[in-house]
Amino acid sequence: NFDHRMSLLLCSWTTLFVRTQRRMYLASTGLVVQGSNGEYPYLTEEERVEVVTMVRRSLPKEKLLIAGSGCESTRATVQLTERMAAGGADAVLVVTPSFYRGKMSSRALIHHFTKVADSSPVPVVLYSVPANTGLELPLDAVVELCQHPNILGLKDSGGDITRIGLIVHKTKRQDFQVLAGSAGFLMAAYCVGAVGGVCALANVLGPELCELERLCKSGCWEEARLLQQRLIEPNAAVTRTLGVPALKQAMEWFGFNGGPCRSPLQPLTEAETEQLRRGFSTNGWL
Amino acid sequence: NFDHRMSLLLCSWTTLFVRTQRRMYLASTGLVVQGSNGEYPYLTEEERVEVVTMVRRSLPKEKLLIAGSGCESTRATVQLTERMAAGGADAVLVVTPSFYRGKMSSRALIHHFTKVADSSPVPVVLYSVPANTGLELPLDAVVELCQHPNILGLKDSGGDITRIGLIVHKTKRQDFQVLAGSAGFLMAAYCVGAVGGVCALANVLGPELCELERLCKSGCWEEARLLQQRLIEPNAAVTRTLGVPALKQAMEWFGFNGGPCRSPLQPLTEAETEQLRRGFSTNGWL
Amino acid sequence: NFDHRMSLLLCSWTTLFVRTQRRMYLASTGLVVQGSNGEYPYLTEEERVEVVTMVRRSLPKEKLLIAGSGCESTRATVQLTERMAAGGADAVLVVTPSFYRGKMSSRALIHHFTKVADSSPVPVVLYSVPANTGLELPLDAVVELCQHPNILGLKDSGGDITRIGLIVHKTKRQDFQVLAGSAGFLMAAYCVGAVGGVCALANVLGPELCELERLCKSGCWEEARLLQQRLIEPNAAVTRTLGVPALKQAMEWFGFNGGPCRSPLQPLTEAETEQLRRGFSTNGWL
Amino acid sequence: NFDHRMSLLLCSWTTLFVRTQRRMYLASTGLVVQGSNGEYPYLTEEERVEVVTMVRRSLPKEKLLIAGSGCESTRATVQLTERMAAGGADAVLVVTPSFYRGKMSSRALIHHFTKVADSSPVPVVLYSVPANTGLELPLDAVVELCQHPNILGLKDSGGDITRIGLIVHKTKRQDFQVLAGSAGFLMAAYCVGAVGGVCALANVLGPELCELERLCKSGCWEEARLLQQRLIEPNAAVTRTLGVPALKQAMEWFGFNGGPCRSPLQPLTEAETEQLRRGFSTNGWL
Repeated sequence: NFDHRMSLLLCSWTTLFVRTQRRMYLASTGLVVQGSNGEYPYLTEEERVEVVTMVRRSLPKEKLLIAGSGCESTRATVQLTERMAAGGADAVLVVTPSFYRGKMSSRALIHHFTKVADSSPVPVVLYSVPANTGLELPLDAVVELCQHPNILGLKDSGGDITRIGLIVHKTKRQDFQVLAGSAGFLMAAYCVGAVGGVCALANVLGPELCELERLCKSGCWEEARLLQQRLIEPNAAVTRTLGVPALKQAMEWFGFNGGPCRSPLQPLTEAETEQLRRGFSTNGWL
Repeated sequence: NFDHRMSLLLCSWTTLFVRTQRRMYLASTGLVVQGSNGEYPYLTEEERVEVVTMVRRSLPKEKLLIAGSGCESTRATVQLTERMAAGGADAVLVVTPSFYRGKMSSRALIHHFTKVADSSPVPVVLYSVPANTGLELPLDAVVELCQHPNILGLKDSGGDITRIGLIVHKTKRQDFQVLAGSAGFLMAAYCVGAVGGVCALANVLGPELCELERLCKSGCWEEARLLQQRLIEPNAAVTRTLGVPALKQAMEWFGFNGGPCRSPLQPLTEAETEQLRRGFSTNGWL
Repeated sequence: NFDHRMSLLLCSWTTLFVRTQRRMYLASTGLVVQGSNGEYPYLTEEERVEVVTMVRRSLPKEKLLIAGSGCESTRATVQLTERMAAGGADAVLVVTPSFYRGKMSSRALIHHFTKVADSSPVPVVLYSVPANTGLELPLDAVVELCQHPNILGLKDSGGDITRIGLIVHKTKRQDFQVLAGSAGFLMAAYCVGAVGGVCALANVLGPELCELERLCKSGCWEEARLLQQRLIEPNAAVTRTLGVPALKQAMEWFGFNGGPCRSPLQPLTEAETEQLRRGFSTNGWL
Repeated sequence: NFDHRMSLLLCSWTTLFVRTQRRMYLASTGLVVQGSNGEYPYLTEEERVEVVTMVRRSLPKEKLLIAGSGCESTRATVQLTERMAAGGADAVLVVTPSFYRGKMSSRALIHHFTKVADSSPVPVVLYSVPANTGLELPLDAVVELCQHPNILGLKDSGGDITRIGLIVHKTKRQDFQVLAGSAGFLMAAYCVGAVGGVCALANVLGPELCELERLCKSGCWEEARLLQQRLIEPNAAVTRTLGVPALKQAMEWFGFNGGPCRSPLQPLTEAETEQLRRGFSTNGWL
């Protein structure tokens, strides 16, 4: 029903995606729907499209809307990408296919993303999230793909800062945009050259992440450091440690509509809820 | 189109699934469609159901038909399970959901499989395939789930023979059926108490696997060993090393209709084709 | 002191190593000292040699004594091997060096083992134990090394039964001896062609492992299976799950002198002791 | 011989270790001998001590000398620590023991480091290097150990920047010093609060690393970023990708005495040498 879908939606937005888009349009901040925390693998294709359409309707025109359109097969990704664009997405976020991960070589992944970008009516953002896919988009594939005129960036949720720095270095000429995929390393990512972030934690501590971004961009590194450090534990709690159910629970605490997860994701146990609370309270957020 | 789907189908069958079914029916050998090698993540739901329906139509009544019906969400799995049963599947093979693998605790997985088995019109076979999912169905979950009257076995493709022996030991009272998920450890699995296998290699060397089964079941271990040893390398080539494209290529060599894979799976390179050929030829199969 | 070293010693023996040795001598069962459970990384070189000398003195002449002589560097391994042989070892067990595991390619490992075997006065048994070293001796290195006249076998503690079967297959012509490195997969290893085992559990349930060996070798697979299944959990408890401290504790229960471990290995907690007890008691051994 | 040992030595120094030492002494930069790249697992205890003594003799008094004194057992580490201090080390770098990694819980590691620090005549720096040990010193152990008056810092070579930031945050009150263990993430580590680095690459590009440090400390992040980016590939080549033999080869190119490695480390192949050269030349260092 509507409420439940809305909670799925809220779980996946971001307040951070900035800078002039390459060859396309000027955006400030916006939303990502159906990143990893959007529970998109639990939605039907119809639901996925409907969520995007609904969000577009209520989102101010000047706000960028990025929709996750990745599927396992190339053809399904191509089709969903078209529907997402028709539904109002300004760009699509395409996760690495991963079921046959042993065969997802650079060759296979370059082929996949190229086909999708070739036919997509909107720009493509690559998405590497090894915690969910068990697969990191290889550096050489990123370097190859960054030359495609319809691929404008990468959301990297792996958090290997050496790799992120190297990707920035190797894709510089293409004006490729690297985005931190999690709030735990957002400051370090800015430091080595990322231009923004797509962070689950923004659903709960959105203004604080915007403030962190501002501090990094204006060179207030000391202040940024203090803020960043207080965000690591709550971020870990709502992502790696306790996952989507924790993110939704935290949203409830902060006055948003988190709602339940779909099965097989389970509600937090009491012990987990307490652990989640500590993640926020010991850092002064609750 | 039809041909392509048929090749998807052929890729996933098995000639090995035996023994009296618990509380339900007597079967001899049969087919599994939409196991890992059936490229099911690349099929639409409609295609998945259609393949099962078509196979059922051409499969002799006394042959068991098992259909992979696993999806990421519990509700999608419940729905597809019903459609598979309606399409003629005698049982369903349900893979562990894995996208949120960090949260796929025993609690979550027990909940998922219990819900599916509760509502399924046909018996459920659990499916653990860590090479694809990055997740092994935990032992304690198997021990709990084996008590469900509508869960009759496990296809274990991980190949940890100590674990397989222990699962046989701990599920003995429930007459739970453990199936080897790959031909590389089929003999060892029989040795420690498995009752059958679901093996990709059966698409190419079906009669040889049936012969291996016969040797194991009749206690001809010396002969079995010699045969088993010659199957390890070709099996590795069509599964772990070179994957589904290699299985389909090998099928062509053996007179079947393998056909192409769907993207992002890529055709074999020349070097890979040569490597595949060696896997068979050095063991006397080509 | 003596007592402590003896307990170190007891922790590492085996009652299983059989078959005519290639080109060298006839042995029945014997002892391995300074396998992984012998705490050898915590002994000085002097202690390592002294243990072997002492064991040789009290061990009947017809019993084979195998001494772990592996070190990180080739030169240290060569020197310790000589001292072990001088101390009375009939053969040495040489673990893969692993500190620079990223550089321990087949090339490096073949070089290492060849140098050691070239200069060793006694035969060499290769030793692959990934749980401790984070490194599996690659198949191609084993196949190359099995041709060395002074390398007569492999203790494989990884437990990948497909790999073990393939190693047997590929080293057949050299009459290479593959030994199961843990009791959890001893029966399966015999089934696919191993000729013996070196098992920590033999320190506690020695006669039972000898009986399992007898059953496998005489083709009593049904009986073997029942016995094997009851050994998996106690074996897991004294190896992977609770480690050397648990092995020593279990030895005390069975009337042997287990003794304490050296630090940083810690004594079992009460909860761990209870867990260990259950591993034995639920399988009828306590 | 001397030359060879000197090359071992050169391989392990660092030009970066700064800030007022807690409760002890004022140091500027100095040397670390027998970090991972010092091939210490290939040296005898005598050689390890001799190297430190020799370095101390030729090193200006005001330069800090830190010696790796970690061994697998607590008692050996305690003894070597004493000898290192007697040989002139100002502090010791103690790596996590790792052979029984399954049992190296926080409890065991806290016990180990506490015993070593209790008896050490000089301050202790913890050392976590998962690429070599397969083990990361757990966060809770670091937080506990940072309260020990004789433990003054951590060399973290894992490179997980989120973890590094969190460690800085959780050990702030103890004035604990976190050091980047590799040049690939040196700038990001400074950014999140590290106070220095111990970097293999300093053996080759020492002045450049000092310059990077200066830029970070003086807040010239833009310039720092450009320099950092050009250091990632050469650093990867001499550490993770090609290892100690590459570091020594590169030293030769830069006019130092690199020398050969001890076996089983192998000399670079021609292809590897070419790859190494590219790592430097494409970034303008050769």
